[in-house]
Amino acid sequence: MIYGHDPRTGEPVGAALTETDSAGVDLIVSAAIAAGAAWRATPAAERASALEAVADALAAHVDELWQLADQETALGEVRLRGEVGRTAGQFRLFANVLRDGGYVEAIIDHANSSLTPPQPDVRRMKHALPGVVAVFAASNFPFAFSVAGGDTASALAAGCPVVVKAHPGHPNTSERVAKIVRDALPYPDLLGLVQGMQAGVDLVQHPSVVAAGFTGSVAGGKAIQKLIEQRETPIPFFGELGSVNPVVVLPSAPVKEVASGFAGSLTLGVGQFCTNPGIMFVPEGDELREAIVEAVAGTAGGPMLAERIRDGYLGGVDRLGELRLLAEGKPGEGSWAVTPKVFITDLGSFEEKLPRIAEECFGPASIVVTYQEISELRPVLERLEGSLTATVHSTDPEEAGDLVDVLGRKAGRLIWNGWPTGVAVCWAMHHGGPWPASTSTFTSVGATAIQRWLGPTAYQDWPEELLPDELKDGNPLSIPRRVDGRTQV
Amino acid sequence: MIYGHDPRTGEPVGAALTETDSAGVDLIVSAAIAAGAAWRATPAAERASALEAVADALAAHVDELWQLADQETALGEVRLRGEVGRTAGQFRLFANVLRDGGYVEAIIDHANSSLTPPQPDVRRMKHALPGVVAVFAASNFPFAFSVAGGDTASALAAGCPVVVKAHPGHPNTSERVAKIVRDALPYPDLLGLVQGMQAGVDLVQHPSVVAAGFTGSVAGGKAIQKLIEQRETPIPFFGELGSVNPVVVLPSAPVKEVASGFAGSLTLGVGQFCTNPGIMFVPEGDELREAIVEAVAGTAGGPMLAERIRDGYLGGVDRLGELRLLAEGKPGEGSWAVTPKVFITDLGSFEEKLPRIAEECFGPASIVVTYQEISELRPVLERLEGSLTATVHSTDPEEAGDLVDVLGRKAGRLIWNGWPTGVAVCWAMHHGGPWPASTSTFTSVGATAIQRWLGPTAYQDWPEELLPDELKDGNPLSIPRRVDGRTQV
Repeated sequence: MIYGHDPRTGEPVGAALTETDSAGVDLIVSAAIAAGAAWRATPAAERASALEAVADALAAHVDELWQLADQETALGEVRLRGEVGRTAGQFRLFANVLRDGGYVEAIIDHANSSLTPPQPDVRRMKHALPGVVAVFAASNFPFAFSVAGGDTASALAAGCPVVVKAHPGHPNTSERVAKIVRDALPYPDLLGLVQGMQAGVDLVQHPSVVAAGFTGSVAGGKAIQKLIEQRETPIPFFGELGSVNPVVVLPSAPVKEVASGFAGSLTLGVGQFCTNPGIMFVPEGDELREAIVEAVAGTAGGPMLAERIRDGYLGGVDRLGELRLLAEGKPGEGSWAVTPKVFITDLGSFEEKLPRIAEECFGPASIVVTYQEISELRPVLERLEGSLTATVHSTDPEEAGDLVDVLGRKAGRLIWNGWPTGVAVCWAMHHGGPWPASTSTFTSVGATAIQRWLGPTAYQDWPEELLPDELKDGNPLSIPRRVDGRTQV
Repeated sequence: MIYGHDPRTGEPVGAALTETDSAGVDLIVSAAIAAGAAWRATPAAERASALEAVADALAAHVDELWQLADQETALGEVRLRGEVGRTAGQFRLFANVLRDGGYVEAIIDHANSSLTPPQPDVRRMKHALPGVVAVFAASNFPFAFSVAGGDTASALAAGCPVVVKAHPGHPNTSERVAKIVRDALPYPDLLGLVQGMQAGVDLVQHPSVVAAGFTGSVAGGKAIQKLIEQRETPIPFFGELGSVNPVVVLPSAPVKEVASGFAGSLTLGVGQFCTNPGIMFVPEGDELREAIVEAVAGTAGGPMLAERIRDGYLGGVDRLGELRLLAEGKPGEGSWAVTPKVFITDLGSFEEKLPRIAEECFGPASIVVTYQEISELRPVLERLEGSLTATVHSTDPEEAGDLVDVLGRKAGRLIWNGWPTGVAVCWAMHHGGPWPASTSTFTSVGATAIQRWLGPTAYQDWPEELLPDELKDGNPLSIPRRVDGRTQV
């Protein structure tokens, strides 16, 4: 049996749930396939309306949902209410994406008999991948990266049915969210839910699964990658794994704002963000160092999401213990509570301990690395692994110099005078980055996340009456298209 | 030592070439990385001019090149001259792609403080992947899918340096083409060439390689996939592997045209195309069957590209020998020559022998499968593996009915009343398909092939003076962009 646990007490909470066995996984995937055939054939504008119905249903249940999730995650009312809103907002964004129609990337090349050889009429657009999308839910966002999270919303938008492997950190929340979404969809079986580790194995190896999305640890992501490698038919794996999110503070940056912003970003949600600032490079000097000590001392820890995650954090902090402890927050309260900790070292010592020292420590811990000259930073930054984000603090763009180039090769999102926690759900967002931040060049947040679940089809000399509306002459859906080499709106 | 061989005699031809050892591979990759830093920073319009210089250089050497390639491939003057032209044309297409600028998929979301939480200014575009692209050349197109083929042209266009592992079927042609391209590029080391199987292993496992392109057999593709799985850092693998390219002839199709078109497509280039029509479903009836016999009897075989490929074809034909031989072409002349062969079976017997019977037999062999009713076809087509193409012959679009849906899930390109051989190099082309046709949802031919070598970066509240021109307010490069949710041209 599977139980949720209250991080404040460490005790089981909510109903006892059954693990989904292999036959159960197969039934759920088969039901999803059956529902998916009708969904795939549903015009984009109707899929958009269905996504909005899901958004409305989630928003309508916010009072119930935040309380349920708080019992299993201890993330608190404000954060959880906000997260339900964000989750509903993701469905609304993808409804807009579908209505806009640019996501199919329609391209039309009319026949050209003056070329050698003559060119046929060729038209291309993207369609949903032909099968079920498997989604592995994350622990740290019980709504926005879980059962009804961005992976699910974008895959449903694309036209794919989805089967989610629930995260054991919030199994009852997962069941409830699944029920709400299923009830709101025109075909409830478009969303399936499985519980238990073996169910995840069965799911990702199921022959009808055509792609997998995952948000979690490097170890977890590697395990799923191995399972996929054992499949008869390979499938794409869109994993968002570890990230240390380097922050570079340049000499011109304002000391107080940097210190308080850092402390806030580091300890938000007990540091349980994949965009948590894990390494911050600062100019050598007492003033900023002291400001950091003071700002971090004003923060408090709290219970982490799971015993295993708490143990992982304590192990990580132990590992960082070879450095000097610079600052500490107040201990949190509760059974699985931890204390924010910031360590300090100089650039030379940091470099000697690479790559080991730069491994992600999930939770409210960070390393402050002091440097003397900006020019010393580049070779060290070159040696960092890929991250989701890289941040520069400076009041003078010229000061950044050639650091911008190296940071651009190390991270998927570059931030100026801000903090990496907080990922805007918009058209331009990119939430990905070089390995191990991500297993692909795709994003898991923002409008283009839908691209993960689409594949192109070209139609050559295809009769007008059989072409999808997106590719017909006259552009009946009024979508942006590239026609004979030129973008048209 | 490595030698080219004349398929007409089976004898070695041209210079003896040295295999590249591990130290050599490392040197070539390092030189490519160094050249790549400058190339990556070169504005797209200048990269476009460089690609056109390569196109001009290839075209200027056509007399020399076709003769060199003919010695090693026996593909003949007409085909090889045409292929050099096509190869130069691919560089010109990507020059147009760069000047158009839409390939970076620029997206701008201005800050919006009225949202909760307030949305920062986020801008996104694609850049070249940060490292070297490894390209594994194919045997069957010594120019268009080899050293200066579509993989190389699209990767150079993206801004990546390229190291090609030469195909042993045309090693001297490979050396000569590499020299011509290197001489035409602003940084010659943007293109490296390695020879020998172990060099390919070293190349794809080199830490500076960030992606690999491959065109070849399922076995070859799986071997490279395994090597990539052993890497410390995973990289994307863009393989174009096997394809049987089903053709469905419906009752309304004109008998004579279908028979002659089929015979021509089947035997073009001694059947050595990944888009060769390997299975054709035809309505039961004497007239079409007899027309096929007559049309195929009018064709002739020829020498295949390599002894191993010839042996593979003979093995495949042996395997198909369990079916009845329907038609044969004239034997080809030369040491590695083979004869076109067409086998026949009925739909029921074919289905019983699935999936084994539907494996690709590379060369001029095909299976004609007779059916009684169109409605019988769907369940059989559902059981086929993925292909690059699927073709329908009919004079009545309504006749195709729900076959279009299943074919659309089985192939990346749908063709009406045409033949799959011949892949137009245009904006809308898609040359890919479900496994084993392709290892990804990307294309290896056409304008969007450049997308394989690009990854997005988002810029959050980034200072205007540090933004790439593609993302600056005012759109200084006049490229198509999505601004605040709307496509603008």
